[in-house]
Amino acid sequence: MKVSELGEFGLIDLLAKMTRGKQSPTEHQLIIGIGDDAAAWHGDSSVQLATADFLVQDVHFSLDTTSWKELGWKALAVTLSDIAAMGGVPRYALISLALPDTTELEDVTDLYNGMIELAQQFDVAIAGGDTSQASMVAISITVLGSTKSQDKLVLTRSAARAGDKVAVTGDLGAAAAGLEMLSKQIHFNPEATASLRAALLHPYPRIKEGQLLVEQGVKAAIDISDGLISDLNHICKSSQVSARIEADQVPVNPVVRTSFGKKALELALSGGEDYELLFTASPQVIDRIKELASCPITIIGEITADKASKVILFDSKGNHFSPHKSGWEHFSG
Amino acid sequence: MKVSELGEFGLIDLLAKMTRGKQSPTEHQLIIGIGDDAAAWHGDSSVQLATADFLVQDVHFSLDTTSWKELGWKALAVTLSDIAAMGGVPRYALISLALPDTTELEDVTDLYNGMIELAQQFDVAIAGGDTSQASMVAISITVLGSTKSQDKLVLTRSAARAGDKVAVTGDLGAAAAGLEMLSKQIHFNPEATASLRAALLHPYPRIKEGQLLVEQGVKAAIDISDGLISDLNHICKSSQVSARIEADQVPVNPVVRTSFGKKALELALSGGEDYELLFTASPQVIDRIKELASCPITIIGEITADKASKVILFDSKGNHFSPHKSGWEHFSG
Repeated sequence: MKVSELGEFGLIDLLAKMTRGKQSPTEHQLIIGIGDDAAAWHGDSSVQLATADFLVQDVHFSLDTTSWKELGWKALAVTLSDIAAMGGVPRYALISLALPDTTELEDVTDLYNGMIELAQQFDVAIAGGDTSQASMVAISITVLGSTKSQDKLVLTRSAARAGDKVAVTGDLGAAAAGLEMLSKQIHFNPEATASLRAALLHPYPRIKEGQLLVEQGVKAAIDISDGLISDLNHICKSSQVSARIEADQVPVNPVVRTSFGKKALELALSGGEDYELLFTASPQVIDRIKELASCPITIIGEITADKASKVILFDSKGNHFSPHKSGWEHFSG
Repeated sequence: MKVSELGEFGLIDLLAKMTRGKQSPTEHQLIIGIGDDAAAWHGDSSVQLATADFLVQDVHFSLDTTSWKELGWKALAVTLSDIAAMGGVPRYALISLALPDTTELEDVTDLYNGMIELAQQFDVAIAGGDTSQASMVAISITVLGSTKSQDKLVLTRSAARAGDKVAVTGDLGAAAAGLEMLSKQIHFNPEATASLRAALLHPYPRIKEGQLLVEQGVKAAIDISDGLISDLNHICKSSQVSARIEADQVPVNPVVRTSFGKKALELALSGGEDYELLFTASPQVIDRIKELASCPITIIGEITADKASKVILFDSKGNHFSPHKSGWEHFSG
């Protein structure tokens, strides 16, 4: 069987099963292994977190449309976002780089300057890594962090419960719209262009918001990297629940709505790479978070008891509908 | 300037300078950043260690000569070896994989089985990672660990002092000989073939030996990945000392001596990938280690006060000589 037949998520499931249950003393310290946003294990006074992301040229980014500095920012941002989705504090980053040997040194320093700029904003120290030659650019980043408090609470994909409301931070669709704009060379006015480009290439990981969710008692969250529906599906699968989404409640980015018309909702539902947090909690908890958060918080649906792990979409008339695609998955045709 | 003009080690120096001295609170906790075998920072009751390795198809390995299971073992082994070179205890591994979507699933499970086999031997839990599509196979591994004791002692590249003797664990040259054998399709007898193949593709990280070095008071060590001379050069540069090596004291692997004749010494001096530990200490400390270690320990030279960071080789007649090449460096023509 080819990995393309199994798909990325099938592959991850398989690898999780293979590595689990080896009954080693170290594994007993492990709280969360393969399959969530980050790994977590018991430290002395907090839970330790670690997460890794792999970005490959012409799969995750194109140097035709992305500057090296933007690439550096984004590569670190998507990895920090996984720590945000656990409600943790990022602390150290290890950067492994594969580069063609004809790469300009200035490009590498630009790449690092993009990472350093973001690292400084979140007090992350770039502590090590590896460099290698390759035929194309690949960046592998590991970020290590911990829970903020000694309560050792983390946000997981498996803690959603029937009756929870489903909510998101910020708005959705702009990163996918930015990708459409750049890859298809669509022209918009300068402000729209800048805003969509920034959404794709300069995302802000929701670190502070993740910590706020933990503090306010939220248990289940994920960051939206693959797409709203796909990532909500991950929560449903891990939690053995289903979800219903009111499509007209989904906070579509206003520039996307103006620039992409009918396609805007699809970009918001399935586009991915927004790096907003998707979480589930009681309406009371979400109301408190709305008051405290410095970004919009929107309730878009609710968790239901159906163990089939389905995400069902409803339009404003209460009719069920399907989007064109549900999200991004590697190795799927 | 191209990265090939600067070379791998020049690039690492530059990135270390760029990321250092940002004066963030997290950086103040950092004990060792870019430029040693692993990063180290203060944990609550021990020093935390993290190290990353990036292996790229047709740069670090060839699937023509390496089985997927051997690849898995080796990829994890080389990363664990960096924890060994700090004298630490490895605990968690994050595995990021880039794969062509035509990869057979069985190959991926073989790869993981190779890693799992090694992980179990050293009580390492595979805790997470990432998977991605790519045009070739690339494996990025991060291993997290800690010091064994609360004394927080680690082996560094910067602690060699004039007057120290230079010593190595095990013997050298067999991995490079294995690479020559496989890449040039040289035929030896079955035992020699198996032994050289195992040296290249099934190395044992010197975890226990690294911990023994720390316990016995050794301060400076590195693992031999680039080659004896190249790696000793890293120690000399970090410690601002030089070294003299008695070439006839270098423990050349006996199979290499028999199979490669005159070239054997060169393979042992410059071949790399042996993953033995190279360390410096007083003769008294090394004598104690010889008694306690379960592998051979050989004194091969000494550290001198010359700040020029040179490694000078002497033959049995006391004459200075140069090997053909000093070791492996990415991005160098």
